[in-house]
Amino acid sequence: MNVVRRSIGRTDLATVDALGECGAATVHEAMGRVGLMRPYMRPAWRGKRIAGNAVTVSVAPADNWMIHVAVEQCREGDVLVVSPTSECDAGYFGELLATSLQVRGVRGLVIEAGVRDVRELEEMSFPVWSRFISAQGTVKATLGSVNVPIVCAGARVEPGDVIVADDDGVMVVPRDRAGEALAASRARLEKEAKTRERLAAGELGLDIYGMRETLAAKGLKYID
Amino acid sequence: MNVVRRSIGRTDLATVDALGECGAATVHEAMGRVGLMRPYMRPAWRGKRIAGNAVTVSVAPADNWMIHVAVEQCREGDVLVVSPTSECDAGYFGELLATSLQVRGVRGLVIEAGVRDVRELEEMSFPVWSRFISAQGTVKATLGSVNVPIVCAGARVEPGDVIVADDDGVMVVPRDRAGEALAASRARLEKEAKTRERLAAGELGLDIYGMRETLAAKGLKYID
Amino acid sequence: MNVVRRSIGRTDLATVDALGECGAATVHEAMGRVGLMRPYMRPAWRGKRIAGNAVTVSVAPADNWMIHVAVEQCREGDVLVVSPTSECDAGYFGELLATSLQVRGVRGLVIEAGVRDVRELEEMSFPVWSRFISAQGTVKATLGSVNVPIVCAGARVEPGDVIVADDDGVMVVPRDRAGEALAASRARLEKEAKTRERLAAGELGLDIYGMRETLAAKGLKYID
Amino acid sequence: MNVVRRSIGRTDLATVDALGECGAATVHEAMGRVGLMRPYMRPAWRGKRIAGNAVTVSVAPADNWMIHVAVEQCREGDVLVVSPTSECDAGYFGELLATSLQVRGVRGLVIEAGVRDVRELEEMSFPVWSRFISAQGTVKATLGSVNVPIVCAGARVEPGDVIVADDDGVMVVPRDRAGEALAASRARLEKEAKTRERLAAGELGLDIYGMRETLAAKGLKYID
Amino acid sequence: MNVVRRSIGRTDLATVDALGECGAATVHEAMGRVGLMRPYMRPAWRGKRIAGNAVTVSVAPADNWMIHVAVEQCREGDVLVVSPTSECDAGYFGELLATSLQVRGVRGLVIEAGVRDVRELEEMSFPVWSRFISAQGTVKATLGSVNVPIVCAGARVEPGDVIVADDDGVMVVPRDRAGEALAASRARLEKEAKTRERLAAGELGLDIYGMRETLAAKGLKYID
Amino acid sequence: MNVVRRSIGRTDLATVDALGECGAATVHEAMGRVGLMRPYMRPAWRGKRIAGNAVTVSVAPADNWMIHVAVEQCREGDVLVVSPTSECDAGYFGELLATSLQVRGVRGLVIEAGVRDVRELEEMSFPVWSRFISAQGTVKATLGSVNVPIVCAGARVEPGDVIVADDDGVMVVPRDRAGEALAASRARLEKEAKTRERLAAGELGLDIYGMRETLAAKGLKYID
Repeated sequence: MNVVRRSIGRTDLATVDALGECGAATVHEAMGRVGLMRPYMRPAWRGKRIAGNAVTVSVAPADNWMIHVAVEQCREGDVLVVSPTSECDAGYFGELLATSLQVRGVRGLVIEAGVRDVRELEEMSFPVWSRFISAQGTVKATLGSVNVPIVCAGARVEPGDVIVADDDGVMVVPRDRAGEALAASRARLEKEAKTRERLAAGELGLDIYGMRETLAAKGLKYID
Repeated sequence: MNVVRRSIGRTDLATVDALGECGAATVHEAMGRVGLMRPYMRPAWRGKRIAGNAVTVSVAPADNWMIHVAVEQCREGDVLVVSPTSECDAGYFGELLATSLQVRGVRGLVIEAGVRDVRELEEMSFPVWSRFISAQGTVKATLGSVNVPIVCAGARVEPGDVIVADDDGVMVVPRDRAGEALAASRARLEKEAKTRERLAAGELGLDIYGMRETLAAKGLKYID
Repeated sequence: MNVVRRSIGRTDLATVDALGECGAATVHEAMGRVGLMRPYMRPAWRGKRIAGNAVTVSVAPADNWMIHVAVEQCREGDVLVVSPTSECDAGYFGELLATSLQVRGVRGLVIEAGVRDVRELEEMSFPVWSRFISAQGTVKATLGSVNVPIVCAGARVEPGDVIVADDDGVMVVPRDRAGEALAASRARLEKEAKTRERLAAGELGLDIYGMRETLAAKGLKYID
Repeated sequence: MNVVRRSIGRTDLATVDALGECGAATVHEAMGRVGLMRPYMRPAWRGKRIAGNAVTVSVAPADNWMIHVAVEQCREGDVLVVSPTSECDAGYFGELLATSLQVRGVRGLVIEAGVRDVRELEEMSFPVWSRFISAQGTVKATLGSVNVPIVCAGARVEPGDVIVADDDGVMVVPRDRAGEALAASRARLEKEAKTRERLAAGELGLDIYGMRETLAAKGLKYID
Repeated sequence: MNVVRRSIGRTDLATVDALGECGAATVHEAMGRVGLMRPYMRPAWRGKRIAGNAVTVSVAPADNWMIHVAVEQCREGDVLVVSPTSECDAGYFGELLATSLQVRGVRGLVIEAGVRDVRELEEMSFPVWSRFISAQGTVKATLGSVNVPIVCAGARVEPGDVIVADDDGVMVVPRDRAGEALAASRARLEKEAKTRERLAAGELGLDIYGMRETLAAKGLKYID
Repeated sequence: MNVVRRSIGRTDLATVDALGECGAATVHEAMGRVGLMRPYMRPAWRGKRIAGNAVTVSVAPADNWMIHVAVEQCREGDVLVVSPTSECDAGYFGELLATSLQVRGVRGLVIEAGVRDVRELEEMSFPVWSRFISAQGTVKATLGSVNVPIVCAGARVEPGDVIVADDDGVMVVPRDRAGEALAASRARLEKEAKTRERLAAGELGLDIYGMRETLAAKGLKYID
């Protein structure tokens, strides 16, 4: 029942990188507003925007054994995504594991639990999105699985999905929709650039988006 | 039932600016410890201290339509204060809306919900106090109201109240008490400056505030 | 029933300082994973790592009177540890109290409640770990006690225990185990340095820690 | 600054009672979906549906002094509504205060804090809606106010507003809208009775409410 | 992108009913401790144990339109499972919708949001598991989908999965594992019946499960 | 480091039973308002009031192994008090363990984690106070300790302390203060009986407790 799947599909890193440049909010909107993790997933330190192919890990509460197993399955351009089978705020991950991942080209960690060594992670420039920050240690006693479908912070993650993460949150793009997501994101960015210019020039969204009529039709009243 | 009130009273910006220099904690104490929003209202990025006249917005959950309506009602020196009719962590606000507000001289946003584009907001130096940070998108389907009395993070806000916000939280000063609040805040700052000097010189608060007798009267015992 | 204990045992500052250099996560692991406060205790501003001897304060909810009493009991190398008798998010502590503590050589504050003047505390370089940040004021009406055993954020703290705090959390070392904790922490750091080197060279934790056999014995399956 | 207002307007008890029979959910809908307290306000014991005129109390955290003051201001048909100036989970209220209120004809308590003696309150049939249940005691040291406007669980309450509370939550009806609220609630109940009959007979809401066309127009697709 | 899938696989009701008799905790253990929803999913009223085939609904925050759509897709033995696209505590569901579902033989509702009319639901004996109880109303403005895979309270639910719910929580059994789950649950119940008898006779779990040796091997010390 | 202490001091059951009759709120007040667990500790089913001698258990997160060990250390009149070393919502305890405890005369369970089989526990009349209700299973892999001092829900518990628990919460009475606690509780009950009679007769607390003068001295103003 506990398995490590060694071969998973991945998206080419050119597409992944391009999605990363778009950012979580843009990709989320471009995908039709689905696939975002819950907002309690926050960067352990701020300022990084990444994308990568998901290597997924299902772990027991307060037990980080399977993260050690997962390291071996990671390669250049991956993001490790970890979820415990029941809620847990222990510190599963610190700079030793980060060292090991960084050496393999892994771009970051997403974990619905706790991490520690925050200062060291920032010094190493290894980004982490987690639910908790905690020095609380874990054990290595119970098996879990690597590269199985998981639910992380309310989002379904399949191994090989593209993860886009930045200060706004963590977005999951199903692998078979990565190309479509990129195209839609770029279209959105282009459109936003034009809107931004008009807004910066003092035009109102009410006019740019043509909202005045609909508002009136719905019955909005202006009074003095 | 859904209205946009176009004309609201505002406090002169000299008073507003002076309140902003005092900071949320000082003004809160000077007002008799009322009017502070709940501490879950946190700056999306830290380090900014602002004050402004409140333009209030009541919005539907996960629906940011009325923020677009509110932009038009804002002017130099305002702060937008937004509250959903039921609890919501969606990201109502990002850099496009911030661009539009900044062009009008709006000083910041206070919202009992989520915001996104945090990095961009910091780069633009547009300050935001929110309950959540989230890339989750919103719709534009349900009316709300602009410049009606609202409850935001446990505090009553009338349009035109003075908002003072910094890293310590968000304070609401009723418009008809702004002058009084400023006088009391300044008196407090002056007194604190003297106390700080004495404390820095090694005197004890116990002595400066004359607490020893009351403590003894209440029955506090010193033991070894 | 409300007492101030004036004489408490303390650990020599050489040991305390050495524990501080190890950091909360290392000391926590070295002590057998006990003594850590709950992860909701977060630094009001990040980047500081301290250690000190605990002066404990039991306070009434929203009443900071006893912190003023406690200041007098503090000396060089202490850390003030404050816990309310019922949960409270008010701002018990700000830059005036910090000034008073800093002048006495106190290294920081740990409080299971709120603090304010966050920007000023950072400017003064006075570190604080708290559950909340809030400008909400407190009263001075109800007695508490100083230097009695308390529970703070889920951890027992006796006066004179060594507190180690950094961005990862707050750790409590019982005074009679400080020496042992330091020895174990140093041993751990030494071992970790070697492991880090091997990991950085590309070796896997699976091999360094010899996990492959146990994993197989437990029934972990590798599939393609 | 701390006042007790002795004379407040109240709504006639016939209207109040009739609103109580409609229940919180119906009145809330009939009022246009505003005025409901946050859902964390729960009955200390279930099964009661009440309405009454609000006597409001603003209390200090963990200090129930002003509730004793408020008792004297209550009369037949009132509901006591209590809110602390900062968040607090202490047990402000138990069977002694309930005895005193019940003797005066007060119909229940709504408090954004804790209560105790839950079993005794149920035996007395005195209903309470609170945020917390806690035996934690309070002090009597700091003044507050009675019959001033307050915010309770996210809702504005003016003294004399009509409170409608049941297992679904707590609703606040502004006094000057009580008649209108009753009329709208009754109309709604009548309409719902007819709808219920049709639904019970197997008709679908899709057809009764005529939703099929709008759904299709918005683009909903049925697939097999 | 918004779809209603009309034809889904279901499990025969004999198997479903038998799983219901086993209860959530037993089925969860029998399945290897996966598939349980988060413990914040609680019965709106207690005492009911049900099982049924899942009809899934993805709804917009504070918008219950798609529940009306879903009713038509339900049949005898189903359980409606509803999850909003972002967190929401509004009251999506009350006795009118329950009437409609009950008439179709639906056995209950599982919703990661709020419900209302709790007293009426209990009187109708229609069971509901929800995250919140709230009278807060919703709108009908934004499309969602019916019978698509969703994440509800941390668990993946496919249309047609078997839901087992009681006072202990809500369990999701993938449709293709329903038979296996039933067999394993029954085996577990049988074994537990024997253990219960031995425990009731005063034997210790330490002896029945043969734990003494392993505990000693791990190093557990008995002291006086 | 992991120990089971077999011999602990206990309080005679006559005193324990008498404390139980007083209830958590009364004993808490009589002890000077210390020793109460956090209000998130709630009865799994309501209506029971118990007292007993504490057998304490420190467990690993999501690991109930040590509860099996603790059963053997329990005797007539005990209450099992369990706390995990880091926060955990898993279901550590169900009817099998309850059967085993009940047979030994144990009066109830207090656990800062989850329990399951709630309906069965109520049918057995075995009372439980817990933080969570959850069917989520646990493992038996990591040692803990029995009858060591623990922190449970914010309260220090020594083995042999008297636990008083009812619908209002869970109170811890240090063993060496049990006699004193009983005397003070009885005095309090007697005084309350007289007060209740006067309140029921319509006298006001303001007069019974002589509050009017102090309120006036503090500056409370009555207005019309």
